[in-house]
Amino acid sequence: MRVLLNPLDGMNLLSQKEVQQLQKSSSSHLYKLFRKCALAVLNVGNPIDNDYEVYERYKDFEINLLSRERGIKIELLNPPESAFVDGKIIVGIQEHLQAVIRDILFNANKYHDLDLDDSQQITNAVFDILRNANVVMPTDFPNMIVCWGGHSIKDEEYQYTKEVGYQLGLRGLNICTGCGPGAMKGPMKGAALAHAKQRINDGRYLGLTEPSIIAAEAPNPIVNQLVILPDIEKRLEAFVRVAHAIIIFPGGAGTAEELLYLLGIMLNPNNKEQVLPIVLTGPKSSIPYFEKIAEFVEITLGKEARNLLNIMPDDSVSVAQFLKEKMYDVREQRRNVGDAYQYNWSLKITNDFQKSFEPNHKNMAELNLNTNQDTVSLAANLRRVFSGIVAGNIKDQGVQAVKEKGPFVLDGDGELMAHMDELLQAFVSQGRMKLPGSVYTPCYKILKN
Amino acid sequence: MRVLLNPLDGMNLLSQKEVQQLQKSSSSHLYKLFRKCALAVLNVGNPIDNDYEVYERYKDFEINLLSRERGIKIELLNPPESAFVDGKIIVGIQEHLQAVIRDILFNANKYHDLDLDDSQQITNAVFDILRNANVVMPTDFPNMIVCWGGHSIKDEEYQYTKEVGYQLGLRGLNICTGCGPGAMKGPMKGAALAHAKQRINDGRYLGLTEPSIIAAEAPNPIVNQLVILPDIEKRLEAFVRVAHAIIIFPGGAGTAEELLYLLGIMLNPNNKEQVLPIVLTGPKSSIPYFEKIAEFVEITLGKEARNLLNIMPDDSVSVAQFLKEKMYDVREQRRNVGDAYQYNWSLKITNDFQKSFEPNHKNMAELNLNTNQDTVSLAANLRRVFSGIVAGNIKDQGVQAVKEKGPFVLDGDGELMAHMDELLQAFVSQGRMKLPGSVYTPCYKILKN
Amino acid sequence: MRVLLNPLDGMNLLSQKEVQQLQKSSSSHLYKLFRKCALAVLNVGNPIDNDYEVYERYKDFEINLLSRERGIKIELLNPPESAFVDGKIIVGIQEHLQAVIRDILFNANKYHDLDLDDSQQITNAVFDILRNANVVMPTDFPNMIVCWGGHSIKDEEYQYTKEVGYQLGLRGLNICTGCGPGAMKGPMKGAALAHAKQRINDGRYLGLTEPSIIAAEAPNPIVNQLVILPDIEKRLEAFVRVAHAIIIFPGGAGTAEELLYLLGIMLNPNNKEQVLPIVLTGPKSSIPYFEKIAEFVEITLGKEARNLLNIMPDDSVSVAQFLKEKMYDVREQRRNVGDAYQYNWSLKITNDFQKSFEPNHKNMAELNLNTNQDTVSLAANLRRVFSGIVAGNIKDQGVQAVKEKGPFVLDGDGELMAHMDELLQAFVSQGRMKLPGSVYTPCYKILKN
Amino acid sequence: MRVLLNPLDGMNLLSQKEVQQLQKSSSSHLYKLFRKCALAVLNVGNPIDNDYEVYERYKDFEINLLSRERGIKIELLNPPESAFVDGKIIVGIQEHLQAVIRDILFNANKYHDLDLDDSQQITNAVFDILRNANVVMPTDFPNMIVCWGGHSIKDEEYQYTKEVGYQLGLRGLNICTGCGPGAMKGPMKGAALAHAKQRINDGRYLGLTEPSIIAAEAPNPIVNQLVILPDIEKRLEAFVRVAHAIIIFPGGAGTAEELLYLLGIMLNPNNKEQVLPIVLTGPKSSIPYFEKIAEFVEITLGKEARNLLNIMPDDSVSVAQFLKEKMYDVREQRRNVGDAYQYNWSLKITNDFQKSFEPNHKNMAELNLNTNQDTVSLAANLRRVFSGIVAGNIKDQGVQAVKEKGPFVLDGDGELMAHMDELLQAFVSQGRMKLPGSVYTPCYKILKN
Repeated sequence: MRVLLNPLDGMNLLSQKEVQQLQKSSSSHLYKLFRKCALAVLNVGNPIDNDYEVYERYKDFEINLLSRERGIKIELLNPPESAFVDGKIIVGIQEHLQAVIRDILFNANKYHDLDLDDSQQITNAVFDILRNANVVMPTDFPNMIVCWGGHSIKDEEYQYTKEVGYQLGLRGLNICTGCGPGAMKGPMKGAALAHAKQRINDGRYLGLTEPSIIAAEAPNPIVNQLVILPDIEKRLEAFVRVAHAIIIFPGGAGTAEELLYLLGIMLNPNNKEQVLPIVLTGPKSSIPYFEKIAEFVEITLGKEARNLLNIMPDDSVSVAQFLKEKMYDVREQRRNVGDAYQYNWSLKITNDFQKSFEPNHKNMAELNLNTNQDTVSLAANLRRVFSGIVAGNIKDQGVQAVKEKGPFVLDGDGELMAHMDELLQAFVSQGRMKLPGSVYTPCYKILKN
Repeated sequence: MRVLLNPLDGMNLLSQKEVQQLQKSSSSHLYKLFRKCALAVLNVGNPIDNDYEVYERYKDFEINLLSRERGIKIELLNPPESAFVDGKIIVGIQEHLQAVIRDILFNANKYHDLDLDDSQQITNAVFDILRNANVVMPTDFPNMIVCWGGHSIKDEEYQYTKEVGYQLGLRGLNICTGCGPGAMKGPMKGAALAHAKQRINDGRYLGLTEPSIIAAEAPNPIVNQLVILPDIEKRLEAFVRVAHAIIIFPGGAGTAEELLYLLGIMLNPNNKEQVLPIVLTGPKSSIPYFEKIAEFVEITLGKEARNLLNIMPDDSVSVAQFLKEKMYDVREQRRNVGDAYQYNWSLKITNDFQKSFEPNHKNMAELNLNTNQDTVSLAANLRRVFSGIVAGNIKDQGVQAVKEKGPFVLDGDGELMAHMDELLQAFVSQGRMKLPGSVYTPCYKILKN
Repeated sequence: MRVLLNPLDGMNLLSQKEVQQLQKSSSSHLYKLFRKCALAVLNVGNPIDNDYEVYERYKDFEINLLSRERGIKIELLNPPESAFVDGKIIVGIQEHLQAVIRDILFNANKYHDLDLDDSQQITNAVFDILRNANVVMPTDFPNMIVCWGGHSIKDEEYQYTKEVGYQLGLRGLNICTGCGPGAMKGPMKGAALAHAKQRINDGRYLGLTEPSIIAAEAPNPIVNQLVILPDIEKRLEAFVRVAHAIIIFPGGAGTAEELLYLLGIMLNPNNKEQVLPIVLTGPKSSIPYFEKIAEFVEITLGKEARNLLNIMPDDSVSVAQFLKEKMYDVREQRRNVGDAYQYNWSLKITNDFQKSFEPNHKNMAELNLNTNQDTVSLAANLRRVFSGIVAGNIKDQGVQAVKEKGPFVLDGDGELMAHMDELLQAFVSQGRMKLPGSVYTPCYKILKN
Repeated sequence: MRVLLNPLDGMNLLSQKEVQQLQKSSSSHLYKLFRKCALAVLNVGNPIDNDYEVYERYKDFEINLLSRERGIKIELLNPPESAFVDGKIIVGIQEHLQAVIRDILFNANKYHDLDLDDSQQITNAVFDILRNANVVMPTDFPNMIVCWGGHSIKDEEYQYTKEVGYQLGLRGLNICTGCGPGAMKGPMKGAALAHAKQRINDGRYLGLTEPSIIAAEAPNPIVNQLVILPDIEKRLEAFVRVAHAIIIFPGGAGTAEELLYLLGIMLNPNNKEQVLPIVLTGPKSSIPYFEKIAEFVEITLGKEARNLLNIMPDDSVSVAQFLKEKMYDVREQRRNVGDAYQYNWSLKITNDFQKSFEPNHKNMAELNLNTNQDTVSLAANLRRVFSGIVAGNIKDQGVQAVKEKGPFVLDGDGELMAHMDELLQAFVSQGRMKLPGSVYTPCYKILKN
């Protein structure tokens, strides 16, 4: 199957140099990255558990750019059929494809190395990438609700995320997620319906992803603004800098990673005055789940951390009303410090939350998981634990590494490790580590001292 | 509760004369009509079985127009709360309110009497009303699928209507319905989701209603183009003249009325060359239902009528593909006869399908339901039977009349009456005559000779 | 030469009835009116002195409407070539053609007789015609400057009108004129340039005309909103109701008619509180001209009338600054009385300024031009004098009548008649009664008692 | 005087790093460049002869960027008053200010050094700068007419450039110039009027400038797309790559530079198949001028070069019709070679036309102006001669150098030098080297051998 796509608005302008960079013939790292991300967005709607699977299934997939007199055409060979209706690509998916081209070129040409020690430079780069993708709307008032949660959740939980999105949308709020299925899709779907009823034509469904997660969490076509950040740490920074509030729905290791990242930052004394409401919500059945999380947070990071969490189960209307109200506080605080409404420059993020963590066996084993460190450092290291587990579960490289060398080994303070084990067990038993229908084999092993 | 609405785009222009026409003080027929329709659109989302109920519940509701320097404000006293989110009206509902004002004034000032013998004049008036509402898009290609079906259908059926709407929407087709719940809402919801994925920003969800049905079939806020025609006959004419194809989902008496109206017209020898595909579809469970309908049609109106019906159960993709293909035939035929793509002028509708039928006891009793007439006349009379039953079921006047004088009496050819009885029984037993949870008391009585 | 025009946005929707109304075959009054106005807008750019000339020159011109599947095509036979560039019609001119169709049909179908005694009904009708033409923008703040002045003015005067328009445009103000050449075109041209510099994309150049003047004052293509009112009196009412201020540039009989109409209304005691600034301006050389006018006003209508005139010669910047400031007063006053910003409902216009005056020999001779009447009545009659002279100069019917029966005879109070004679002489000697290059033969004769 | 500008659409997004780069405190080269260009665009409308004057007059001018919650505000201290109307900046001028910020940052951060030997890299950079300014419209058909000519021309010549622009605009063509006064402004003004008549809302008036010329040729507010290229050579490359045809109006040294650049490129054998029509036009009085130019071209660069010039004096309609026709040939040729419609990638420009030439005394004296070289090289060197003379006439650095060290000395082949002397004398005597009212002192001296 061969398909030729005419460029949509906003993508037909590539220089000759850029076209060359993405040529297959170049058989470069960049082409591989391009092909991989392109395949991921085309494969949306086919739930998979790890991206390795996708690449296996579509070995003969190929993508090429062709220069034409009115712009660049995209040639697809053997793409997943689910992206097409009667042989024509779904427009939303083509937009994502164009976002892939845009971001891969931009990141490669301007930020090929972002593993910098200069915190400020990374923050500027994240801004630059978002701006280049036209997703920073300077004149908008605070209205962006970041929603985190599992890609594999129960139907009851999924319905609830839709309801919350619907109530947010009725109040003119927008949604940002990691753009995969489950809790990342539900709120957008609900908000889209509400926006239609409110005749909001410029509702935003912002998806932030990165190359190693995009296959497992392929952007749903509802996502109308897609950005591919260079890696997970830049993606997390983008989340918290564009967020005016954050909702955490039930999820697994990825959600835990996000929560620990967020708490690590909010616990930084420089961020004391920040207004960034955090709500944990889900259907009635999720109450024990959130209690478990809150307990783990309190034990590991302390009471202060626990108090940052607003647990508001089973009440989508109250959640939406609460956050709508909070938007005025966010606005007030930004105005007070002269910070931008749409990018939180004043939020302090230290370098150990910015530098990329490679989740290999050595790095995982060497993580300091003891209590001989300050809370912020501990949060940073706990974040890395869950980051590694996500990699071992669903990311290509991680899955391969675990296949070869066995599970990652985690070692540290006895009590801490016991709590972590308990939390992870709960994720496993609740089916949050894998898509339904598959059996989960842990990619980690906790040393019991 | 008192709410003051600022005018939305497109409605702030009323002359002093028009404002006066809609004053409460005038206590005119026009104000009553206005108040009634306004209440209906505000009450959306509260399922009711007949409009009498609504008017009882909101006795102290009032609506007033206030002239202001930048246009007309709308004052609402004691409106249904469901139209509001945190005290603010849902924008889509306000748009419907403005459509009510627009159409009531336009119809009153230009077409206060449409019970004319001149067929052509009525056809021009229907066009004029639609044009005034900005719903005739002359440069669009054929793409409008009219969907008929019950307001009270099973969940499985409802889900199926959404699926069909989704498949139509993916193919760029638009939806027109009678704008109530059930089969009138599902296809729009599905299409809206698909249009979002295809980045179609100008998708049309056209709702055609009339004052006596608007309360029972209040327009869902997804409806983004709403027109209030003067009466049921003008509404039916509007349906078939804007349609490029018609889908019939499972429904009750109203759906039967629509089908018989449509067949009566399509059987007119002048309409032999017309291209207007008719598809009957529903989930697998609806197959017996459609067979019953088809049988009734064949027995009463003959083989030719039966052959106009494409029964395609349980296959939303095929339905959508079939209709998408048919759009090219519609285009071809319109071009051949030089007819407008967006209003079917050349479709012949005779005066007995245009003049309004008042469904009172006398008129119902006098209907000719014998076989001593041509097929087209029989279709016209059968249409009136079901029109009367709808009125007796859910329309204010009809419900009152039946309350006072007992059920409408229907008399005619024995065999014919037996078939009709059977069909109606089926509607009753399948729960298609009433919203779920209520017991149906027939508003008709069939004389058994 | 035969040209077929595809419909532009906004005009492709006509009912079959409307198309029939404008058929040539109908050889009706309406077709003649249509052909006449169409010819006038096509003939723009060819200066003429009276419309009789145009109709003679283009005897074989014909216009037809053809129904097509995507709307109405316009067929032109032997149109003036100046409307075309390399065989294609200038789009602005086609827009005017469509405005002609829109207004002729609307006026004919809704207001075929507007010679009513009910003042309020006429005011509603004028509003309705303007609204139907989409020229009432309810949410705009006051910003519409009506500019009156001669169609035949000196180059220095013309340059000055451009300068004033430029200064008004720089300040975001819009222009409304009678839409012919000279002082009606200059301000629009200047404002258009200024709007471009200010990136105002929705600048309004509103032209108000009527069938008997349209040929002599054909709308320049800069006019981007054109309305054809039914007659001169409705046109004058439209001017003063949409105006937020009025500038009077040098002109002849037509300008005098407009000024007298305006003063007659402003002198009405009911209009005491109205805020409607009147500025008389021109280049330095026009000072004597304005003094003459002011003198005539003071003598005939009194000091109060004279004081309504702000004479501000040779200072385009001050004029623009003064009027910009005044817009806030206009806004204040409209808000105080709850009147619309964009249509002055509260301005009292009595019936003798509304009913159409037919300028034939009998009516002209019978005009009461004595001082035995109140100022308002005298203003109304003086207005009719100049209206008649305009007709005798350039309108088809008037020119014919004068050709047949000799000049209109005017009789009245001796002193008054002497002043009028003097004023008219000044118009003649300054070349304001005719386009340059032609000799003026008076169409009037003032009886000297 | 202190003014604070709110950001207009499209400019409120700067990173903290970028804001810092343009801080005065930095007192960097970049701030000086920024201040200089900002001053130039604010000073539009005040004709000056060299930019040195401007900087003297506005010594206390300052510009600062201030971060605010909804974007960047621009603070101006003591700006030229002509940029304001009643204290508010003209919007078109603010747009230019924002273009300055955009381009200075972009060029500095991505292309701080463009003096490269790699021809392809420069071509990519020019494209990238134009694309970043949103001036490459990939889906447009060929329609961009580059107009070159003097900033100081006679009124008759200026009126003629307006006429040509008007005729081009009537035919839907767009204008690109160097964006100063005279022949660079006239065609835009004419085209803007024609576009208004044709209801073309997206007409393009593209101004290409560079820091050393921007003060002398400040962009008129009609310019609605402004790009500041890094230097004169990149600007010239931008001109010829966006051009679909080039018109040369009467001008002086700058125009001669442009013509020689163009001929040097078109004479390259690799560009044989290029379709890029060149028209020389002006009023009747300019015929001798063009004959002089043609003669010089033929003598120095040969018959082939001469034949590239279409001299079409005194006929704006024919010029516009000719070029409109040629657009189809341009399209054809681009399609044949698969080149972009809106950026001519396939035009070969060798490195000696791309590298920047610094016009100091040494470089000027060392120019090879002998006949011992191929035509293309000679064209390149002749181009440099005129580039140097422009610098000596109006550019800050050049004016200073000549002040200090006396005129540039030019030496070369005797006959060649005689012809050049003659041409330059003609420019001087026709008043094309300076704005009217000033006396020209030559900045060059030709050695007579």
